[in-house]
Amino acid sequence: MALGFELLARDAHTAARRTRITTAHGTIETPVFMPVGTFGAVRALDHDELEAQGVQIILGNTYHLYLRPGPATLEALGGYHKLIHWNKPILTDSGGFQIFSLPHQRTLSEKGVTFKSYVDQSYKTLTPETNIAFQELIGSDIMMVLDVCVPSTSPRDVAADAMTRTHRWAKRCRDAKKREDTSLFGIVQGAIFEDLRKESAEYLATLDFDGLAIGGLAVGETDEEREHFTNYTASLLPEGKPRYLMGVGTPHDLVRAIRAGVDMFDCIIPTNHARQGTAYSWNGKVKLRRSRYAADPLPLDPECACSTCRRYSRAYLYQLVKCEEPTGYKLISLHNIWFYEKLMERCRAEIVAGTYGEFARWFLSSVDD
Amino acid sequence: MALGFELLARDAHTAARRTRITTAHGTIETPVFMPVGTFGAVRALDHDELEAQGVQIILGNTYHLYLRPGPATLEALGGYHKLIHWNKPILTDSGGFQIFSLPHQRTLSEKGVTFKSYVDQSYKTLTPETNIAFQELIGSDIMMVLDVCVPSTSPRDVAADAMTRTHRWAKRCRDAKKREDTSLFGIVQGAIFEDLRKESAEYLATLDFDGLAIGGLAVGETDEEREHFTNYTASLLPEGKPRYLMGVGTPHDLVRAIRAGVDMFDCIIPTNHARQGTAYSWNGKVKLRRSRYAADPLPLDPECACSTCRRYSRAYLYQLVKCEEPTGYKLISLHNIWFYEKLMERCRAEIVAGTYGEFARWFLSSVDD
Repeated sequence: MALGFELLARDAHTAARRTRITTAHGTIETPVFMPVGTFGAVRALDHDELEAQGVQIILGNTYHLYLRPGPATLEALGGYHKLIHWNKPILTDSGGFQIFSLPHQRTLSEKGVTFKSYVDQSYKTLTPETNIAFQELIGSDIMMVLDVCVPSTSPRDVAADAMTRTHRWAKRCRDAKKREDTSLFGIVQGAIFEDLRKESAEYLATLDFDGLAIGGLAVGETDEEREHFTNYTASLLPEGKPRYLMGVGTPHDLVRAIRAGVDMFDCIIPTNHARQGTAYSWNGKVKLRRSRYAADPLPLDPECACSTCRRYSRAYLYQLVKCEEPTGYKLISLHNIWFYEKLMERCRAEIVAGTYGEFARWFLSSVDD
Repeated sequence: MALGFELLARDAHTAARRTRITTAHGTIETPVFMPVGTFGAVRALDHDELEAQGVQIILGNTYHLYLRPGPATLEALGGYHKLIHWNKPILTDSGGFQIFSLPHQRTLSEKGVTFKSYVDQSYKTLTPETNIAFQELIGSDIMMVLDVCVPSTSPRDVAADAMTRTHRWAKRCRDAKKREDTSLFGIVQGAIFEDLRKESAEYLATLDFDGLAIGGLAVGETDEEREHFTNYTASLLPEGKPRYLMGVGTPHDLVRAIRAGVDMFDCIIPTNHARQGTAYSWNGKVKLRRSRYAADPLPLDPECACSTCRRYSRAYLYQLVKCEEPTGYKLISLHNIWFYEKLMERCRAEIVAGTYGEFARWFLSSVDD
């Protein structure tokens, strides 16, 4: 079997669940956060550091990997794990999101999508079939179908067209899949229309994917809409498969989505915030560019056990971010990823204890997002 | 005593020497290479990583630290070691080199030098006395005198004037020094004039510094001139004190200068080369941007035991440098600093064995610089 899935525990009072996913490169305890390693590295960090933070799985971007290093190199080396020397699970998106973000440089047809390479300016075409073939060349443990991405604020007819084409492509992706040691997730679309989300979830459930993702959120809707459609869509997904909320989000977003029964997350926020000098903590965000930290000898978070907090002070991080020293971004990224990992660890423990609802209420009301 | 110095061994056939320097923050085995941590971090690396590479001492730039974080923060925190959480020795330059590199933004008088801050555009004045006071606030284990830096290609009268003012400032620096737990090095100037170099070395020897540096090289002269004046100046320095060649250089430069009896070096080359994708190895330089490495599964240097070579391949480093991922610069910087440290370790061993001359001949003729 491509993907093992066990439902280990349900929270007593919410839809939150504790699951275990098994892949060819090891197991993943969920709820899980997946740092984004676009080109083969999470920005400024190495894999030893990711492992030390407790990272279980990283995400790669198919769009970028298709352009660089491209299929020939991946084939020569025997896949992406061997290129980047990461031996734990890898999930790849399909690249749809990036390609649809290039409105003047791509053309869409039923067959697939053509776009201009930023590497050599040539035109490339990805169809559902060639997309899956490339993700199988990557050898990702969890592949995503090629979907049609539109802003969540699109009119109903645009959202409906995108959804039905996503469905046809999802089936073509499923039929194109050859490797037994990789798995494939479908993606529920439908923007912010309940009936479309329902239709999408029900149709995809018939295609026997290894898991299902909630796509098309965090792309223009309000926070309330995002929360509502996360909850609503999660409630439509089959119990017996992993549920992945794509591209979301802040710690609050994660805690809320876990309460709705979501298992997997990816987001660039922890590393992007680090580059702005913003760190997460259980006492709220710490904005290290503020002059109040210039001579502060305390660790970023005195209760944190990450490698940054064990050795360095806020004053040092202030000095590094003010001087734009990459070491500063690195040390804050390490801390932020540690924070996300510890948050997921805590969520897993609260679910098992049956106290997730209470924990989520406390977190959402007490910890600044 | 501020600085301990032991001459442990001399090479049998060259002027190379193996010494041990003792500071308030620990001992330094020489010949030693000091990575440059301008603002408090060696670019893209953290201190745990520096220690793992075997780094014994880092260099800080007084000019930059004077502007950021500035005296008030350093005073509030109790010095630079406490700001940056590095507990091994630190050497600071005087900032003279940086200030004299700002020809349109500084004015020079016998009293000192006034320059414009790039942080807040205000004018700042450093005299020999305030310079030493600031380096004592930094708390560096080894301070350098404020010297007058001119291009090594300057006319004789310019070089002579700069040298005599450097001498007057050196005496003022020495007289201004108050702390017992820090040490102070003089700097021999004189550009590429043998008589000036001789006069400078002889004068500074009378001032009882803890060590002497060779300044004013690697600033415009030819490679042959640099080698000649390194050799010549080193031969003029007292036997019983550390000798430091400032801002130099490549592995060949270091191996040659050690043969001439120099003990200490600093240079930005290993980290700057890393940012260009160039790595050092015992088989010559590896330029990782070259397409020949795109699918090369071998480590950067198959015989190297650094953390980069233990886990990653040339193909991965190629991918990272082509994608301009900071992780790539970091992994190559780690390797390059490891290479410099292992080179120094090897030089120390060859000196003790009395075979340094043979080693240097082999290295200079066989390993590409």
